[in-house]
Amino acid sequence: MAKTIENLEIEYQLAPTKKQKPNPNELGFGRIFTDHMFMMDYTEGIGWHDPRILPYQPITLDPSAKVLHYGQTVFEGLKAYLSQDDKILLFRPEKNMQRMNRSNDRMCIPPIDEKFALEALKSLLRVEKDWIPKAEGTSLYIRPFIISTEPFLGISPSISYHFMITLSPVGAYYKEGINPVKIAVEGEFVRAVKGGTGDAKTGGNYAASLKAQIAAKNRGYSEVLWLDGREKKYIEEVGSMNVFFKIGGEVVTPALNGSILDGITRNSIIELLKYWNVPVVERQISLEEVIQAYNDGKLEEAFGTGTAAVISPIGEFAWEGKKMIINDGKTGDLSKKLYDTLTGIQTGELPDPFGWRVVVD
Amino acid sequence: MAKTIENLEIEYQLAPTKKQKPNPNELGFGRIFTDHMFMMDYTEGIGWHDPRILPYQPITLDPSAKVLHYGQTVFEGLKAYLSQDDKILLFRPEKNMQRMNRSNDRMCIPPIDEKFALEALKSLLRVEKDWIPKAEGTSLYIRPFIISTEPFLGISPSISYHFMITLSPVGAYYKEGINPVKIAVEGEFVRAVKGGTGDAKTGGNYAASLKAQIAAKNRGYSEVLWLDGREKKYIEEVGSMNVFFKIGGEVVTPALNGSILDGITRNSIIELLKYWNVPVVERQISLEEVIQAYNDGKLEEAFGTGTAAVISPIGEFAWEGKKMIINDGKTGDLSKKLYDTLTGIQTGELPDPFGWRVVVD
Repeated sequence: MAKTIENLEIEYQLAPTKKQKPNPNELGFGRIFTDHMFMMDYTEGIGWHDPRILPYQPITLDPSAKVLHYGQTVFEGLKAYLSQDDKILLFRPEKNMQRMNRSNDRMCIPPIDEKFALEALKSLLRVEKDWIPKAEGTSLYIRPFIISTEPFLGISPSISYHFMITLSPVGAYYKEGINPVKIAVEGEFVRAVKGGTGDAKTGGNYAASLKAQIAAKNRGYSEVLWLDGREKKYIEEVGSMNVFFKIGGEVVTPALNGSILDGITRNSIIELLKYWNVPVVERQISLEEVIQAYNDGKLEEAFGTGTAAVISPIGEFAWEGKKMIINDGKTGDLSKKLYDTLTGIQTGELPDPFGWRVVVD
Repeated sequence: MAKTIENLEIEYQLAPTKKQKPNPNELGFGRIFTDHMFMMDYTEGIGWHDPRILPYQPITLDPSAKVLHYGQTVFEGLKAYLSQDDKILLFRPEKNMQRMNRSNDRMCIPPIDEKFALEALKSLLRVEKDWIPKAEGTSLYIRPFIISTEPFLGISPSISYHFMITLSPVGAYYKEGINPVKIAVEGEFVRAVKGGTGDAKTGGNYAASLKAQIAAKNRGYSEVLWLDGREKKYIEEVGSMNVFFKIGGEVVTPALNGSILDGITRNSIIELLKYWNVPVVERQISLEEVIQAYNDGKLEEAFGTGTAAVISPIGEFAWEGKKMIINDGKTGDLSKKLYDTLTGIQTGELPDPFGWRVVVD
């Protein structure tokens, strides 16, 4: 009989010894992992089974496991914070689980039970609570992901998978205050195209982005601005973030068109701007329009948005040997207010009028 | 001191016991693997090191290994045959190693030494010679691949990798003679776009193709015909194969435009047609042009080409509720001649005027 998700019970295999916690002032991103991880398996005909919390450890895969050849994989990223009164806080985690299932659908991976996955995450966080760093700007980064494990070289969806959640304490993204970055407009490579996988959080999109990213860094830029794959005319994303422009008092972000990731920070910013009665619109926006706004003195601010940075102000765009300096290369008032408000809601320092915070009891 | 490739010696760790060979009449594709595999590692600052032939076995990866999250991986596929006089034959294997390095470049993976990789493959084949099946149409499928192993969640090229070669005895692709397939033109999803990774042999391209493939199979079609990602107008590939059309006596295949894989079978067919003085041209070709040729009674043959099938004749194309039946749904004379000639050269049954065969002494 196939097990249903209702009678799944998480098994606890706790680590006999704990690792030493890292120096909270020396935390980077994504290199240190906690004592435990969550894992469950999918087997065709059975479904998801054997959820367990176990010591963080290497996994074994057959050399022919599909994930190693055909990239059938999805992931998510979110953060846990510790509030002043010592409670574990999550930010809209149900949105991550929903998006993971949309990614699963695109990548032919069987859906997870979103509620169970969130319960599993909470269970893991309860075990690892003392790994959540407390210093300002720090957090516990959460990485849920699914990999295809069937040892078969045929090109077809896998019949077996691992779903895993790992945790990594991360340092402040802005160690010396929020700081604008320089961005190079990418003219050769594209990240995604409508009909492809750009709106799924899957490995191939990120692998495809590396070459342009390295070229930009070698020229002194932090990230690239991605244009659409069809006409290389319309703005899509910046690095691995969504992107916003404040033009003549109105905030514009590219509409979700099938090749852009439906960012949870992006969505929260749109909600927040509406709440503040700041005009905000999701629509197609061309590089040409942004340049024209700049030339007209109307380009007031630009920023990337994502889980890692929350808000990443953009101080400069470079394209075809030309450049625009935005807001004198300084962080704009709206960028700063969005950053302070969102991080304040996330960490519990500000009220949460939207009910976005989830407290892990 | 960094080891140079010249002083690398392959270490042999041979399996103490051998697996039972499969029934040669029951061979499928890519599920059975031989007793041994080849492996070497890359470490930043050292280069590729520790080449070894070891028992086929699961590998261990950190849960944060980049390949599991960001799809930074490449692979190749080729075949070994056993000649009548018991020699191991390869078909243009240097082309696979060259292409692997082109894929490596696109995916920011350090290059391999192509000659050393080919020597490593030959060494592995010598160990596994008795795994090469002898029955007509069977072969030993070879899967070289590279995976990124750095346990780091930052989006950047990995600083460590595994290069591996595994071997799988495969059955005849056409058990009851070469047989045309039905193909559905894909109108929604796209496989790749110029500026993306379509011309690299990397996992993400294949993961992106699954959803359309499943939808086509559910409607009774073997594979999809991929159109270009920009205009959905021009023909790119069929399933995971290159595609050719014979129109009014001339053979046409889409030109390599950056989003199409530079197939070794594709290249060999072009060479073979030129050798035969059959007109052949690589150029942009639209679906509309193929339909027009069909309506004019000039579409004589169509076929996919790749390592697995060599030639896969296409008997039917379906699009928007319409369909074309090509050559009465039968295998065309040229398709058959190409299949017989290429497989004859590959297996050593026919002369090799091009010097394509490589004998493993």
